[in-house]
Amino acid sequence: PMFSSGIGLDAKDITVKGLEAVRRSSRVYLEAYTSVLTVGKEALEEFYGRKLILADREEVEQEADNILKDADISDVAFLVVGDPFGATTHSDLVLRATKLGIPYRVIHNASIMNAVGCCGLQLYKFGETVSIVFWTDTWRPESFFDKVKKNRQNGMHTLCLLDIKVKEQSLENLIKGRKIYEPPRYMSVNQAAQQLLEIIQNQRIRGEEPAITEETLCVGLARVGADDQKIAAGTLQQMCTVDLGEPLHSLIITGGSIHPMEMEMLNLIDGL
Amino acid sequence: PMFSSGIGLDAKDITVKGLEAVRRSSRVYLEAYTSVLTVGKEALEEFYGRKLILADREEVEQEADNILKDADISDVAFLVVGDPFGATTHSDLVLRATKLGIPYRVIHNASIMNAVGCCGLQLYKFGETVSIVFWTDTWRPESFFDKVKKNRQNGMHTLCLLDIKVKEQSLENLIKGRKIYEPPRYMSVNQAAQQLLEIIQNQRIRGEEPAITEETLCVGLARVGADDQKIAAGTLQQMCTVDLGEPLHSLIITGGSIHPMEMEMLNLIDGL
Repeated sequence: PMFSSGIGLDAKDITVKGLEAVRRSSRVYLEAYTSVLTVGKEALEEFYGRKLILADREEVEQEADNILKDADISDVAFLVVGDPFGATTHSDLVLRATKLGIPYRVIHNASIMNAVGCCGLQLYKFGETVSIVFWTDTWRPESFFDKVKKNRQNGMHTLCLLDIKVKEQSLENLIKGRKIYEPPRYMSVNQAAQQLLEIIQNQRIRGEEPAITEETLCVGLARVGADDQKIAAGTLQQMCTVDLGEPLHSLIITGGSIHPMEMEMLNLIDGL
Repeated sequence: PMFSSGIGLDAKDITVKGLEAVRRSSRVYLEAYTSVLTVGKEALEEFYGRKLILADREEVEQEADNILKDADISDVAFLVVGDPFGATTHSDLVLRATKLGIPYRVIHNASIMNAVGCCGLQLYKFGETVSIVFWTDTWRPESFFDKVKKNRQNGMHTLCLLDIKVKEQSLENLIKGRKIYEPPRYMSVNQAAQQLLEIIQNQRIRGEEPAITEETLCVGLARVGADDQKIAAGTLQQMCTVDLGEPLHSLIITGGSIHPMEMEMLNLIDGL
């Protein structure tokens, strides 16, 4: 069968079930976003005892048949940071495998979607998750802010996943068809908070009342699940300058009403 | 340090990091709800190679100091089905440990909160999670239905966690102070759907328009993450009779608007 296995948030987060699948598979693919893990491909290869084949979205789409080859008569593993269902490539592979009549198994793992509970806010009080993308000079989307507003109105926290740019090409390289890629970029909590403040300002200029302000309680998280994980609670304004270190960062905009038990847990977090 | 480790949804779902913590800990506790896992305590003990001490909510509250004893000079592990932050006992222990100055580490794992993505509905489109409890003759709460309504209005799916009754005492045994417990009960998707239909009827009788009807698309899930996991998609009415087998069950009430990719994934699920 084809195994889609999450590998969690840190090098040793793979499950025993996942590791067994990796070790008996004839080929082991690693979704390319995995560069986001605190460790690199080589460290994983050493730990798993297997060579890993990197596969990015493009390759999964174009070479799905290669990935699935012989998965009906042997085991093939496709590894994803976090849980398989967090990967954009996962649904593609499942649908393709099903059409080919190849059995498909999923091995779950922790992802930011549930691990975010580590900050003390209750998971079931989270509303729709949003993504905050890097703004450019000409593309500055604000539409996700409506979801934050809706969540706030319903007393729900908003988990903001922050942009990751890997395998980016400069306009010049893109036009010339050169497969030269820019260094990866990961949005920090500081950058996300600054973009949010700008949206708030824009709304005020337009005479709207923003759903959140500079004073809204937020939680910044970095490297959740790793040994050097860092969490900070403070106002949105404070999130512009808090130092959380290396990627990967996530930001939570709280839902306004904080349960006493949540507050007690938040109080354990170092202030700013 | 004190280690809180999730053990995931199936016997071999513990992570390598979690297993290492278990094996080097001087004592290993297992949160008592773990009887919900498809395997029992004995199977876990054999697989982990360690004796496990069962601890229920009451014991964690009353004997937190015993659990935390010597955790400043040795390692102690506290295991929870799913992810630690799904356990009601977890926050108690963290707060207590912090007051005592004992270092506390969390080892994440999959929980129903993220593994539910296996049905094909997109995780970020889930609104507030609700719990559906067993009704009695005199206690038939409907208030969770407001949250389903709010989620539907916002186009969000609702994950319904279904009631688990373990260590229940009959009224007689409770009064007489006899620590005799009833057999555990787990709410099935059928029971949850029937209670939902009754709420809909009650709303109609009161002249309200219910947020969902007999025809609302739902997804029933059983034993998510286990080899014999079962998922069914269909109307709420159909959920009253679908046979999903043994516990643990969960129910999803879809948000009304289903993304084409979600629909394509749902279509892979066996019909009713």
